[in-house]
Amino acid sequence: MSFRFELLQTDGKARVGRLHTAHGVVQTPVFMAVGTQAAVKGLTPAQLDDAGVQVVLGNTYHLTLRPGDEVIAELGGLHRFMNWPRPILTDSGGYQIYSLAANLKIDDRAAVFRSHLDGALLELTPEKAVRIQENLGADIAMCLDECPPADTPADYRDVAVRRTIHWAERCQAAHRRTDQALFAIVQGGTDVATRVRCAEALTKLDFPGYALGGFSVGETMQQMLTALEPAADVLPHDKPRYLMGVGTPLDLVLAVARGIDMFDCVLPTRNGRNACAFTDVGQIKIRNACHKRDSAPLESDCPCPVCRQYSRAYLHHLFLADEMLGPTLLSLHNLAYYSRLMAQMRQAIAERRFGAFCQARLARWGGEFL
Amino acid sequence: MSFRFELLQTDGKARVGRLHTAHGVVQTPVFMAVGTQAAVKGLTPAQLDDAGVQVVLGNTYHLTLRPGDEVIAELGGLHRFMNWPRPILTDSGGYQIYSLAANLKIDDRAAVFRSHLDGALLELTPEKAVRIQENLGADIAMCLDECPPADTPADYRDVAVRRTIHWAERCQAAHRRTDQALFAIVQGGTDVATRVRCAEALTKLDFPGYALGGFSVGETMQQMLTALEPAADVLPHDKPRYLMGVGTPLDLVLAVARGIDMFDCVLPTRNGRNACAFTDVGQIKIRNACHKRDSAPLESDCPCPVCRQYSRAYLHHLFLADEMLGPTLLSLHNLAYYSRLMAQMRQAIAERRFGAFCQARLARWGGEFL
Repeated sequence: MSFRFELLQTDGKARVGRLHTAHGVVQTPVFMAVGTQAAVKGLTPAQLDDAGVQVVLGNTYHLTLRPGDEVIAELGGLHRFMNWPRPILTDSGGYQIYSLAANLKIDDRAAVFRSHLDGALLELTPEKAVRIQENLGADIAMCLDECPPADTPADYRDVAVRRTIHWAERCQAAHRRTDQALFAIVQGGTDVATRVRCAEALTKLDFPGYALGGFSVGETMQQMLTALEPAADVLPHDKPRYLMGVGTPLDLVLAVARGIDMFDCVLPTRNGRNACAFTDVGQIKIRNACHKRDSAPLESDCPCPVCRQYSRAYLHHLFLADEMLGPTLLSLHNLAYYSRLMAQMRQAIAERRFGAFCQARLARWGGEFL
Repeated sequence: MSFRFELLQTDGKARVGRLHTAHGVVQTPVFMAVGTQAAVKGLTPAQLDDAGVQVVLGNTYHLTLRPGDEVIAELGGLHRFMNWPRPILTDSGGYQIYSLAANLKIDDRAAVFRSHLDGALLELTPEKAVRIQENLGADIAMCLDECPPADTPADYRDVAVRRTIHWAERCQAAHRRTDQALFAIVQGGTDVATRVRCAEALTKLDFPGYALGGFSVGETMQQMLTALEPAADVLPHDKPRYLMGVGTPLDLVLAVARGIDMFDCVLPTRNGRNACAFTDVGQIKIRNACHKRDSAPLESDCPCPVCRQYSRAYLHHLFLADEMLGPTLLSLHNLAYYSRLMAQMRQAIAERRFGAFCQARLARWGGEFL
């Protein structure tokens, strides 16, 4: 097993560490760029490097539908297919089945659903989710889970948690690749007791890493933090913790403060495509007329290639003129912003001043819930 | 005057030379990438470098409408605005007025028309075309011309040519920037005598370079070559010759054989966005199902970053999945293909084997008209 997590330093609950993977070392806490369809939208791998991206996430559901995991395996795996030589994580497809597929029927045996692309009837079992991810060849694969919406009644929430644990066992039993780590996913919605119970059950199965799934599905930030913290607390100290699908810069700071090591979210790239740039003083809507003659960069102290080379006026022009380069450049800046925020957090934790770092960020961003 | 053309070598009518500009030296024959709205669609300047692009062309009509040439001047000029530190050529806006603008009324004084963006009533005079291009700050600016369609009756064609010559004089009189070369444009449609007369009249005005405009407006390739060659023949030997808006790889070879030094065309980037890749054995439609599992690059001997890093299967996938990266990567390859073709021509001319080079290319491409 080439995967290993090295915990280097803690400050309160916040942690700095290293993930050792078959495709290199990852500094944690880390934000992973979403590359759903084997591409981070609009960016080349060289541009991801420029943005300080350490890990790319691929979506199993999308990739198995198109081009197909067997096609990718034939072509040498996802790293080679998309020309990204560094670590990749693939999700299990669970979340997309609930959010994208149609006519979902789920029981302990399998999830049966129709493709959102062509309506084809498909079936995903824990074993198949593992096989697909082994075909894709990511460094980190995820167990198939059930991820019900935030307002799910308690009785069904318990069914979903029981099934998630059962499926984690089946995924673990089916998993063969020794160059790939399989993480389990803690479900349980916003109910603290259920989350903790799920985390404890999965911990007994001894996975190399654990994710907290089923957040960002409609709950408030306070609900998320309330359920996240006790669940993280019962997870093993020496294993990485990944908060799936989260979030804003504020979310990241608050979750790192609660012991989370890994994140992914479409926000930096999606907002970038929609002409929103992240900065330390909030988001900039670059289409706004105030930027038309502004020779300043998005952020004066940002070392990213976009801020070093382009004015707000130029970026504003690209979006008004509907030039593809606008979405590309804002996505690049936003990922660089996220990378830099994570690096700042790692440094603050390493220097045991993360509390002050959080206070300063929250004061600037108007955040609460610390 | 910092602009200078150095003719290094000829082989038949084909020429190898160097343009010395305020932003560096350009090897000719050269293909210039079209960056209409201050961006080559989908590509960063770093990617243009990777594609071997030497010169970017900006469109005066588009840039004066949006963001405005005065905005660009305020921000330090077009080079700085778009972060392209190497040579830029701007057209005069003439061609776009005829192809894009509405309600065109043209007389010797001015062209009056409505913006295709918002219907605003606008006026372009030779003096204004020069002032706009001085604001943009390109290394090479173009005189305002009149570019009638291919089927224009002879009497109006003569009016347009007379006006083009008259406007060239006015542009020359208005032009002030010593770090910018102003080229004249030869019109005259497909009529040899008119073309030659226009070329002779403009030559007397002693411009630092000459363009052949009004091609690719509906005439056949044979008509173009027939009108082009005698016009090129009467242009001064020691000045660069630029064939505007042309063309296919075959067009480029045939025109270089007739003494043309500079080209621009949207074909490599437009076709790239539409999933067509140029190769030495013709265009590849990368959406075709035959590429789904093809691990080969677009061209096995192409040194461009796309061919070195990505399979046809991946590029096929990007287009089927509607990923922005597909248009970006195919545009990059296509520009690299064009750059390489020009470099091969320069080498063949320098080694005085351009005739054989042409024969080999035409045999491969099924071209005629040599």
